[in-house]
Amino acid sequence: MQAPAKSLYGPVAEDMILVEDLLESIKQVELAPLRRMLDHALQARGKRMRPGLVLLAGSFGDYNLNRLVPLGAAIELLHTASLVHDDVVDGAMSRRGRPTANAVFDNALTVLLGDFMFANAAEMVTRTGSLHVTRLFALALMKMTSGELDQDAAAFDVGKDIQAYLWRIGGKTAALFGNATEGGAALGGCDEATVEAFRTYGYSLGMAFQIVDDILDFTGDEELMGKPVGSDLLEGTITLPALLHMERYPRENAVKKYFQARRGRDERLQDAIEAIRTSEVLDVSMEMARDYVRRANEAIEPLPHNEAWQSMVELGEYVLNRKS
Amino acid sequence: MQAPAKSLYGPVAEDMILVEDLLESIKQVELAPLRRMLDHALQARGKRMRPGLVLLAGSFGDYNLNRLVPLGAAIELLHTASLVHDDVVDGAMSRRGRPTANAVFDNALTVLLGDFMFANAAEMVTRTGSLHVTRLFALALMKMTSGELDQDAAAFDVGKDIQAYLWRIGGKTAALFGNATEGGAALGGCDEATVEAFRTYGYSLGMAFQIVDDILDFTGDEELMGKPVGSDLLEGTITLPALLHMERYPRENAVKKYFQARRGRDERLQDAIEAIRTSEVLDVSMEMARDYVRRANEAIEPLPHNEAWQSMVELGEYVLNRKS
Repeated sequence: MQAPAKSLYGPVAEDMILVEDLLESIKQVELAPLRRMLDHALQARGKRMRPGLVLLAGSFGDYNLNRLVPLGAAIELLHTASLVHDDVVDGAMSRRGRPTANAVFDNALTVLLGDFMFANAAEMVTRTGSLHVTRLFALALMKMTSGELDQDAAAFDVGKDIQAYLWRIGGKTAALFGNATEGGAALGGCDEATVEAFRTYGYSLGMAFQIVDDILDFTGDEELMGKPVGSDLLEGTITLPALLHMERYPRENAVKKYFQARRGRDERLQDAIEAIRTSEVLDVSMEMARDYVRRANEAIEPLPHNEAWQSMVELGEYVLNRKS
Repeated sequence: MQAPAKSLYGPVAEDMILVEDLLESIKQVELAPLRRMLDHALQARGKRMRPGLVLLAGSFGDYNLNRLVPLGAAIELLHTASLVHDDVVDGAMSRRGRPTANAVFDNALTVLLGDFMFANAAEMVTRTGSLHVTRLFALALMKMTSGELDQDAAAFDVGKDIQAYLWRIGGKTAALFGNATEGGAALGGCDEATVEAFRTYGYSLGMAFQIVDDILDFTGDEELMGKPVGSDLLEGTITLPALLHMERYPRENAVKKYFQARRGRDERLQDAIEAIRTSEVLDVSMEMARDYVRRANEAIEPLPHNEAWQSMVELGEYVLNRKS
């Protein structure tokens, strides 16, 4: 979370405050326990990358903030709601160094908190005035939950391949990035080719984002990340570096041994982490992320090379270079 | 679940099969674990009262099944998704004699199953082609989750009054009934007064439905209900009969003693159930339910007394007389 938002979002940076204000406004509910929970869930300010993408893509058409800001807020809210549920599902007690909602309240209330936030996001997206964009949003949510479900159902299952991994992160992460840019461009009334270009850009950027996330699980600073190295392995989530390692070193593989261990799994964790960190698979993974950023840039290459375009290209670099 | 659907929904009974077909179609997902879970969650066929109300109200306007059927399916799906999450939240292992999703799968996957169903419901409602109806749907979901949250947060808290109870069941149950009739009429293009009449009808019917539900928790047949008598008390949910009892018998009240017990609560449960069953509060509660049905009927009194209208009046009687 280095790099101030201002420089990341170029010409739309100052309008991002409107997204903040709208997100702030949803905390104003009568029910005191709900208000406390919303306060907690919305306190952790992320980079707001998804709303940033909505505004940037929207600026290529009719830059109507009355429609773009609700979409940005809806997508951010949906993203936050899904994190709230993920933490319940994973039993995670902290995220980026802060206690999770399920750690502070209880699982039961936290499930309902997530539901309320989903509902609020759905209400918010209808404020765009576009049924088409509302529908895209619902479809993105379907892909997200399918991706999450697939990840959870496939935990510790080493039978899945890289194709399955890409499908899963496509749903879990890239669909919502794609929704942000496609939705922004569609709200702006851009022509079909431009909307399509932005969908590809957002989706590809999201793929790169998730791959880097999965790399950082091995290379990131524990303090900055707020979670121990190897958390994905610990939860049984088989990410790209692990898949590549098992594929490239099929014999006596330390990662496979870890996933398949029936007992003494904990003791094998460090071996698996070491095996991945000392091999070339993290570089290979980064090359794949870089390739997705290239595809993202290719998609928007035909569009006007204005200030917003420049920001979007820089966002790709930011995604590749982030350290937490 | 006596009374065949046929007679309940009069002129629209035969079209209800289209809602069934649409619900059936959403099980067709590629992901095998998700398909199994959807199969389980959608297997329990209820009375489909909410889709029935959509079609009945819609028949007062332009009876376009291409728009009404998706709304009916969306509302039923939303209702089912909320039950799936409620069972996780309450740790319920069976519902109406069948194991719950969280009993068969695990809590984590079941939270995600519910999310997928919410997403699917949102996608489904956009098929109505109406942003207005989609927005009403999102607002109903917000009320539902607020009501559930309030109920959960207020468990075992005897400080709440009947007004708070009515607010809570208004969100938890009546909002979606109101959404069914208001949405159906709005899709049918009915005039504003008719839409308003149907909103009041649906909301009031939903209030009666929930009050009867809360009465049945004391009087229902355990086998038909698939849960023990006094389940609400056991979960700390303070319903109308309990509230009336505490209000009318403030001294040495067995119900209050049960809720406030710091230890030996289980032994006080039977006393609390007995106190309620042997007092007049169940009759008083039923009188309140009857009053809501009267308000429902009053609201639609000015509308044409056609076959659909007749069915809606009969639905009120059905809600009051059901035994499970």
